[in-house]
Amino acid sequence: MSRAKVLTIDTMNPTVKKVEYAVRGPIVQRAVELERELSEGMKKPFAEVIKANIGDAHAMGQQPITFFRQVLALCSYPELLSDSTFPEDAKSRACRILQSCGGNSMGAYSASQGIDSVRQDVARYIERRDGGVACDPDNIYLTTGASDGIVTMLKLLVCGEGTTRTGVMIPIPQYPLYSAALAELGAVQIDYFLNEEKCWSLDITELQRAVNEARQYCNPRALCIINPGNPTGQVQSRQCIEDVIRFAAKERLFLMADEVYQDNVYAEGCQFHSFKKVLFEMGPEYAETVELASFHSTSKCYMGECGFRGGYMEIINMDDEVKDQLTKLLSVRLCPPVPGQALMDLVVNPPQPGEPSYGSFIKERTATLSALAEKAKLTEQVLNTVQGISCNPVQGAMYSFPRITIPEKAVKEATGQQPDMFYCMKMLEETGICLVPGSGFGQKDGTYHFRMTILPPTDKLKILLNKVKEFHQRFTQQYS
Amino acid sequence: MSRAKVLTIDTMNPTVKKVEYAVRGPIVQRAVELERELSEGMKKPFAEVIKANIGDAHAMGQQPITFFRQVLALCSYPELLSDSTFPEDAKSRACRILQSCGGNSMGAYSASQGIDSVRQDVARYIERRDGGVACDPDNIYLTTGASDGIVTMLKLLVCGEGTTRTGVMIPIPQYPLYSAALAELGAVQIDYFLNEEKCWSLDITELQRAVNEARQYCNPRALCIINPGNPTGQVQSRQCIEDVIRFAAKERLFLMADEVYQDNVYAEGCQFHSFKKVLFEMGPEYAETVELASFHSTSKCYMGECGFRGGYMEIINMDDEVKDQLTKLLSVRLCPPVPGQALMDLVVNPPQPGEPSYGSFIKERTATLSALAEKAKLTEQVLNTVQGISCNPVQGAMYSFPRITIPEKAVKEATGQQPDMFYCMKMLEETGICLVPGSGFGQKDGTYHFRMTILPPTDKLKILLNKVKEFHQRFTQQYS
Ligand SMILES: Cc1ncc(COP(=O)(O)O)c(C=O)c1O
Ligand SMILES: Cc1ncc(COP(=O)(O)O)c(C=O)c1O
Repeated sequence: MSRAKVLTIDTMNPTVKKVEYAVRGPIVQRAVELERELSEGMKKPFAEVIKANIGDAHAMGQQPITFFRQVLALCSYPELLSDSTFPEDAKSRACRILQSCGGNSMGAYSASQGIDSVRQDVARYIERRDGGVACDPDNIYLTTGASDGIVTMLKLLVCGEGTTRTGVMIPIPQYPLYSAALAELGAVQIDYFLNEEKCWSLDITELQRAVNEARQYCNPRALCIINPGNPTGQVQSRQCIEDVIRFAAKERLFLMADEVYQDNVYAEGCQFHSFKKVLFEMGPEYAETVELASFHSTSKCYMGECGFRGGYMEIINMDDEVKDQLTKLLSVRLCPPVPGQALMDLVVNPPQPGEPSYGSFIKERTATLSALAEKAKLTEQVLNTVQGISCNPVQGAMYSFPRITIPEKAVKEATGQQPDMFYCMKMLEETGICLVPGSGFGQKDGTYHFRMTILPPTDKLKILLNKVKEFHQRFTQQYS
Repeated sequence: MSRAKVLTIDTMNPTVKKVEYAVRGPIVQRAVELERELSEGMKKPFAEVIKANIGDAHAMGQQPITFFRQVLALCSYPELLSDSTFPEDAKSRACRILQSCGGNSMGAYSASQGIDSVRQDVARYIERRDGGVACDPDNIYLTTGASDGIVTMLKLLVCGEGTTRTGVMIPIPQYPLYSAALAELGAVQIDYFLNEEKCWSLDITELQRAVNEARQYCNPRALCIINPGNPTGQVQSRQCIEDVIRFAAKERLFLMADEVYQDNVYAEGCQFHSFKKVLFEMGPEYAETVELASFHSTSKCYMGECGFRGGYMEIINMDDEVKDQLTKLLSVRLCPPVPGQALMDLVVNPPQPGEPSYGSFIKERTATLSALAEKAKLTEQVLNTVQGISCNPVQGAMYSFPRITIPEKAVKEATGQQPDMFYCMKMLEETGICLVPGSGFGQKDGTYHFRMTILPPTDKLKILLNKVKEFHQRFTQQYS
């Protein structure tokens, strides 16, 4: 039949076409194909595909926190509340969550902003985290993963046309959710470059350069920060955060702080400082005026519960009318997934000293975080032994983002493809290792990188790093 | 401090401002306030607020299907797999789901399109439902509730400016997700009116009128159908569906069939026919050309699991390049919630004859569906005893949408407010019953309605209907 289609690549939404998302791009599609080919018995130079492309801890074998899963099982099937093998603190958490659900069931829609008691628990968590700085549960919005919150906030900010179109400053390299969302919303992406030479730190002079240039062609209205950084792994100093806040106030920018890796800090001398806390410590001139949204998620840190799609955002100094509009907008999608809300509740309200599950919780959390710290160190060390690879310390988050030297000859051969895409694709075909090329996150022209998660179990990570080393040496030889 | 805000109602995204969503609008906000006031001991002319505004079965006391919740508990906390009190079929379902998850954990991100094995189960379900018409799992996309799928499909379809801007035909009355999404996307909403006199049926002549008029100011590209209908409760005949498909083919419209109430059919002589099945029975001229997306959800039917945000869409005859774009777009949000995917899997693959849980599953499902059928009948009957209220049969879905006569004097007094909003607000303040005014869904000018769910338990529903009756009589007296 030859009736022309209504919806074709030429007649579809043009802003959707502009969206790119490297973390699940062509390399990953090829990795999935290779896995299928292997399972069908096809011969390959490797026995398994290792997906080091995405920060997905459980997929890499990390075990869930027992207490969290016990409570989720109890909430799913409350008959278990009479099962004596479940600890009492798990039961009391489950009861508290269920009592806040319509009909005492996770199957009821929640309020669009999220379950009241969960938002209260989030607020108390933030107060503890920030050394007592007050947090109002009314400023907390539960979300479907941090992704949902980030896209929603960007959506509110977009307006204007031509040179008055909203511009949003994002770090380069960045987590590509930002560029994808801005493309879809038709907003202007304003790049500011992190300083690779200074351990991917953020320079205010670079922010200033970026905003000044951008004012010639758009209306810069927001500044996004990822701390700890993805893909770059840096942890910002308190001083830097203060400077950023001062800059945002001076330039009248809405601040968006992506803090999903807030528990993932490994390097000595580094510490997580929330934007909220620093803002409030700077006194009322800032604390009462600078507009800030910060984002958290159940997907990262020590729990790595990505599949549940839990998250929250805290919103500070937002105009009341805009807040009403935000709530209205969220209500169209009804509510975030309730199991994800329950999980978020457990993350912000874990077992306390004296409760039966406290010991095992601390043990499990510590084991995961110290393994991650060890793997961060290991990754940096091994990669830096390779000539042509240079890797900044992985101070936090879950990735290394080393710079790689790609020989001229390989750059030429990669026609029509980014050289680091060419490199990563070749690595995948030869070793089964799936990485994301630096071009997917943005990088200075003429530099090349890849992103690799530090999540595989230590043994496996060692093998993987060795394979990367051998591949890089082979590749360099082949093309020089 | 008096620094002007970056983000204000005047500088925020103008398309977001245009969004309206009555199901959670001012009436519901007032209901929440009243609940708080009651709990603080304030005196009211009623003892509790009854939220009959939203199709939220569990919130109204409906119990979850035991088997579904057992499997979810097993998936959440797999240690329970060695607990002998769980039935074997629940365990085997849980194992199958976990084996399809990264690291055997619901905490891993799934593929963006959804878990493979779940999509296969959905495809087999559709084949059974549609009497053997083939279904390709590649055409199945798991979603975060049906809402997510619907918004995503609309997003793909939007392009053009001015008179070439995409227009989308939606029924009036409609479920307001449609108008909200179109407003946000800046697409043109094309109203076609359902025929209240003929039990809210769909006339092709009305579709034709609507599309002809719309062609003068926009580019009509899609036609949305809700069957069984929300808020109107009608179930479409096979003949009607065939006519709609023929109309869509002739007018070159992409069909979107919202079939989330596919198991909610109560009236004698009525039966659910899927658009997919009818399309394929019409032969290759239609089956191979008409583009169709159909939507399903875990939120409705007999399970009513809204909080899990599970759903799927099936996409037929979509251009391959557009499909790639769709997959890319979904990947930005990473994946739908895995517990919701697991639940969707159970809905499409429930206990089978011979399995240990079959008996109790059938019993629970039947009990819920026959109670709903009874309540549908009861609602229609009682409402039709009231002078000034006239209610079409509730053939399916979960709502009655009766027409109400509002005296002239009340219409005048409702200045600045829709008269049915005035009516519903008054009902809420006097009786504690929370309904949604017809104006939130759209209705013919000069007619007034409200939407009320049939979900409260039968006893409670009887009381509620009586209160509505008394209120209507009082209101009519007061204003005549
Ligand atoms: C910096 C950053 N922000 C946000 C997200 C989104 O995570 P989620 O939507 O799973 O919470 C990620 C995921 O990798 C991330 O790395
Ligand atoms: C007709 C219709 N479509 C879609 C939805 C969305 O439901 P969900 O996103 O919970 O699947 C609803 C919810 O009430 C509905 O009535």
